[in-house]
Order: sequence, then C-alpha cells, then structure tokens
Amino acid sequence: MHVTSTVNGVDLDRLSGTIDAVSADPALARFQFRARNHWIDGGYSRTTIKDFYGAGQEDDTRTEPFTVDTDEPPVLLGENRAPNTGEYVLHALAACVSGTIVYHAAARGIALDGVETTIQGDLDLRGFLGLDSNVRPGYEQIQVTINVAGDFDDDQFAEIASLIRYSPVRDIVSNPVPVAIDVTRA
Amino acid sequence: MHVTSTVNGVDLDRLSGTIDAVSADPALARFQFRARNHWIDGGYSRTTIKDFYGAGQEDDTRTEPFTVDTDEPPVLLGENRAPNTGEYVLHALAACVSGTIVYHAAARGIALDGVETTIQGDLDLRGFLGLDSNVRPGYEQIQVTINVAGDFDDDQFAEIASLIRYSPVRDIVSNPVPVAIDVTRA
Repeated sequence: MHVTSTVNGVDLDRLSGTIDAVSADPALARFQFRARNHWIDGGYSRTTIKDFYGAGQEDDTRTEPFTVDTDEPPVLLGENRAPNTGEYVLHALAACVSGTIVYHAAARGIALDGVETTIQGDLDLRGFLGLDSNVRPGYEQIQVTINVAGDFDDDQFAEIASLIRYSPVRDIVSNPVPVAIDVTRA
Repeated sequence: MHVTSTVNGVDLDRLSGTIDAVSADPALARFQFRARNHWIDGGYSRTTIKDFYGAGQEDDTRTEPFTVDTDEPPVLLGENRAPNTGEYVLHALAACVSGTIVYHAAARGIALDGVETTIQGDLDLRGFLGLDSNVRPGYEQIQVTINVAGDFDDDQFAEIASLIRYSPVRDIVSNPVPVAIDVTRA
C-alpha cells in the first residue's frame, strides 16, 4: 500500500523525489523563468507569462498565458487600473517568504494552520524623478511581518523563523542580482 | 486658454507640477507602499493591495483592493493557478524599466510609438532547496531586452537607453535593499 503524505498542502513524496533527483543530477536544478511586457499608455502596461525551462525540459503544462497588468495611481499620473510595479515587488516578496516557510516546514514535518504576511516599503520619489543623485530610485527599506499559526513548540518556532533564508525573492531584493539590459530600436 | 499637453499618455502639466511640488517640499516625495498576503495551501497564496502613503497623505482613490494570486507549476508542486513569485519579480522589473522610459521620454518631449520588453531570469533550485550553501536561492542573472519604436534621432535613442537608470525596480533588483523580517506566532 502506498500512503501519500501531504503537509501544508505540499506532497512530501514529490518533494523528496525532487530533492533526490536534483541531488543526483544538479543540471535538473536549472530553471529559467520568463515574461513579456507590452506598453499600452502612460504607466499602464500588460505582461504575459507562460513558458519556462526547468527540471531538464521546457515546461508545457500551461495551456494559456497568465496576464498581469500594471498601472499607477492618480498621484503618479495613472488611473488605478492595476497595482504599480513597486507594489508587485512587495507582493512577490511577501508571498515568497510565506511560501518558503510553508514548503520547508512541510519538509520538516511541521504542520501550519495559517500564515499571514504584511509588508511595507519606503521610497523617496526624488530618486525616480532624478531630482537628487544621492536618493536611490528604489526602496530605501522594506519591513515584513509574518504571523504563523500552528501547534508547534518553541524549538520548532525558532526553526520556522530561520527558514526565510531560503526565500528566492528575499535573496533577490536583499542582495545584488546582475541585470543586463539591452535597449534596441524597432 | 489652457492647453493640456500629453506625451506617451503622460500629462506633462501634472508631471511638471509634481516635480515642482517635490522640489519645493521634499517631504512630498515620501511614499510607502503596502501589501498583505494570505497563505491558502502549498505554494498557493493571495495578496491584497490597496492603501499607500504618498505626496503628504494617505491615498484614498482606490475603493476596492487589488487581488494578486501566486501559485507554482506542477514541477514545483503547485497547480498553475497563477504565476510564481520569481515570475512576478520579472514582471515588475520589465514593466518598471518600460514605464520609466515612457515617463522620462515624455518629460523630454520624446514621443514613443511602442515599447516591448522581454525578460528572463536564471536560477539554480539547489539554493531554495538548501542543497548547496554556495548556491544562492535567487536569480543568478537577469536579461532584459527593451525594444522601443518611434520617430526619434540617434541622440534621442541614446538618451532613451540611458533612462533605465531611474527605474525603481531595476535599482531594487540590482542593488541591496535592507529587508527587516519579523516572524511572530499567532
């Protein structure tokens, strides 16, 4: 009899299978994610997301692309048709630290009843506007609070709190990523 | 008679008004964006985005929150209900460099006919899985290609290409941002 064990919605058989496969052949760990953005008007644009490469092959499980819109609020000369790009960064970071805790807690057999994450980022618009070269365009600081619920002891809670170190987006935001940008003309 | 001048969908009167206001009172440049993420199951979670602070006040122009979902593809133990967080980072970066070019070109009187941006990010899953401490969890590199169309000369094209330096998300991804994370228990 094969018993499937799922913790936090994560299939532990599949997770350990992934870990074993990647350990045996590190080339399977290579992933490339992709997106394509089409400018519409002002701060309004649309991104489509579909294909990616991972685990040794092009993924073909998505039959339709995801569509993600961006706009700005009126104070930033948009029409509130969608969140702005700085807000999407906060979304990605909050969802990633939460999901990282969920997966790694599952691998350790720690069941969670809930994870609620709040996040805020502070920036000075003078950076974007180019009014002061000493002011960076991006966030000066980001604050995240993750509230986890579950029946775990103090040692397990300490371990849960330490799991954020595995979060990809936390690493991307906290540490430098080489970004090569090529501007071409049609 | 008041003539409104709009370039690239950007209202130049309002843009110059913003620049003048922020130059006169730098406190107006302070913005704080926010998001709240609710874990649902496995890699599936939902973020709500609504309020922010900017230009000296709490914004009240959004009557309903935006909802942004995250999931993973099957190979990462999800069900493809939404893009994953690494893809949202690519979306935010692509849309931000595009929008930054659009706004700054408008301020310089350069009209654009189109902006198409493609982006890809490479990562090694061993970082997330904690299998090799020498492998970072996040992207090892990101490649962006921005194709701009319009009736501009070579000098203007060179200026357009240089405008990416003002992009907030490019700064956030390329350079370190201090991220403070507090994990609490319910």
